[in-house]
Amino acid sequence: MSITLNSPLDMHLHLRDEAMLNTVGPLTSDTFSGAIIMPNLVPPVTTKEALLAYKERILKACNNDAFTPYMTLFFQATYTKEFLESVKDELTAIKLYPAGITTNSEGGLSGFDVDELRPTLDAMSELNIPLCVHGETNGFVMDREAEFVSIYEMLATNFPKLKIIMEHITTKESVEALDRFENLYATITLHHLLITLDDVAGGMLQPHLFCKPIAKRPEDREALQKVALEGHPKVMFGSDSAPHPQHAKEACGCAAGVFTAPIALQVLTEFFVEHSSVEKLQAFVSDNAQSIYTNIEIPSKTIILEEKKFKVPNKYAEVVPMFAGETLKYSIAEIK
Amino acid sequence: MSITLNSPLDMHLHLRDEAMLNTVGPLTSDTFSGAIIMPNLVPPVTTKEALLAYKERILKACNNDAFTPYMTLFFQATYTKEFLESVKDELTAIKLYPAGITTNSEGGLSGFDVDELRPTLDAMSELNIPLCVHGETNGFVMDREAEFVSIYEMLATNFPKLKIIMEHITTKESVEALDRFENLYATITLHHLLITLDDVAGGMLQPHLFCKPIAKRPEDREALQKVALEGHPKVMFGSDSAPHPQHAKEACGCAAGVFTAPIALQVLTEFFVEHSSVEKLQAFVSDNAQSIYTNIEIPSKTIILEEKKFKVPNKYAEVVPMFAGETLKYSIAEIK
Repeated sequence: MSITLNSPLDMHLHLRDEAMLNTVGPLTSDTFSGAIIMPNLVPPVTTKEALLAYKERILKACNNDAFTPYMTLFFQATYTKEFLESVKDELTAIKLYPAGITTNSEGGLSGFDVDELRPTLDAMSELNIPLCVHGETNGFVMDREAEFVSIYEMLATNFPKLKIIMEHITTKESVEALDRFENLYATITLHHLLITLDDVAGGMLQPHLFCKPIAKRPEDREALQKVALEGHPKVMFGSDSAPHPQHAKEACGCAAGVFTAPIALQVLTEFFVEHSSVEKLQAFVSDNAQSIYTNIEIPSKTIILEEKKFKVPNKYAEVVPMFAGETLKYSIAEIK
Repeated sequence: MSITLNSPLDMHLHLRDEAMLNTVGPLTSDTFSGAIIMPNLVPPVTTKEALLAYKERILKACNNDAFTPYMTLFFQATYTKEFLESVKDELTAIKLYPAGITTNSEGGLSGFDVDELRPTLDAMSELNIPLCVHGETNGFVMDREAEFVSIYEMLATNFPKLKIIMEHITTKESVEALDRFENLYATITLHHLLITLDDVAGGMLQPHLFCKPIAKRPEDREALQKVALEGHPKVMFGSDSAPHPQHAKEACGCAAGVFTAPIALQVLTEFFVEHSSVEKLQAFVSDNAQSIYTNIEIPSKTIILEEKKFKVPNKYAEVVPMFAGETLKYSIAEIK
């Protein structure tokens, strides 16, 4: 059996910078038409100059005409309408991090005051710039995302014309919020479709499956699987593929992130086939994103996957991928 | 300020074997009068010969006249009354593990059938041999202990004269069960008094705080703290101190266990002092255990702790302790 995917998109991706960018960039650009690039570098991407320079470095590292990095800025409530107008053509979205909530988010938002946020969010609404949100409070690790739903609701209600993307959702509470507000959308990662906290900490501790938000309960995974497999139109694939060198993962104080870029399409295909939903995969990995992000252009790329074993490398340079050393059922047979 | 503790007891301890035993044995025997020694070696301790031989190795490694290892057998439903009578004077308790639930528990119990268990548990009741239980189901990691409470209730109801120790409890559900059944008791570790899942996986992943049962929610920790700090007579200190070499903790597939033996009394002192409950510490670390375990003899040992900084070593041989490299408020000033 072969599966054809047209212009797959990864709507949440970490490419890092310098040597790591050179390692992981091509692993995405080979098989995806485009990806939303997270701005949490050190320092974060907050200016037009930094954004353009980062885009240049990405294009150089990827060296692939059929791949577009969709650039984002790191949200700041000080962005003016004039600034956003000046940068609008260069960016696809703005990513909001609560302060300190994940890797390199120290400069994030420390409170959600509507009046303070209004000028920037009103301008984004007018200019059709989606707001991507890492939605976690600083509460207990298993509750952080569910607690954040009230903030999503506050944002969705106060800024009804703003497209708000709940990034890498992990809970049934976020899934339920999707249908309550017209302007709420979501990305779902590969790993959150597959694992629960049991896989991270139920047997031996598995640092390579440790990520933020942390994988949750079985009923949460079930809710995520349901909307992904039905091709829910407000749900997009966003890998949140986040490379760290092996020594930073297998350590006292392991960094958060699962690296899935090079195996995502193969595993998604297997997952959708096994759940008799392969006809919905195109919607999940591309079509829904195209409908939601009306401000992107998408290079044409066709990926043909075949039911043929693929042994995942133990490492890509110093980065250990999900399913390292394991054999997957589907391979990428052709890219055109 | 100085604090005097008489004959501290660690009612749940892993000493392992061979080189590791030689490393960790003295770190307990220096400061504790006795400890309940877990039998989950490879293979587990299931015969009188193995038990006596292990005791010999422990005594040799510890080389301390004022320390008694309280030996246990690994529970098997095939133990007969005759066998238990023959071994009774050599053992203090029997430890029951559900199969595969933690380190070296593969040979544990795969079901809880009252009729199957009755001969052994009736004999233990008659012979005043307490049953120590690792109470977790094979369910979702955050639910395993709460789900097991129904099994504790079944055991407590069917074997009313059996002393059942809920080992290393981590949940409010287990705390609540304590007062519902006269013959249920519990041990609490140092680390479960101090940490929640947030400390393990809420920031960076902390493999040295990864243990089984995993640390739970803030409200669970609060319930544990309450019964420990009030010196609840059915609650005993059991460190569950479980050494692994550093390379087995900081790895892909990190082993479960927190190593606290050499810092337990210092940290407990600080914790009880800070919670204005230092007068209950003697009950928690010794007196309650003496009342519950009526079958033990306790070497006299007096530990005097002083408010004087103690820098925890980064390692004891290859084992990284809890609070490695940190400075504690209390030191052991004198042992007599």
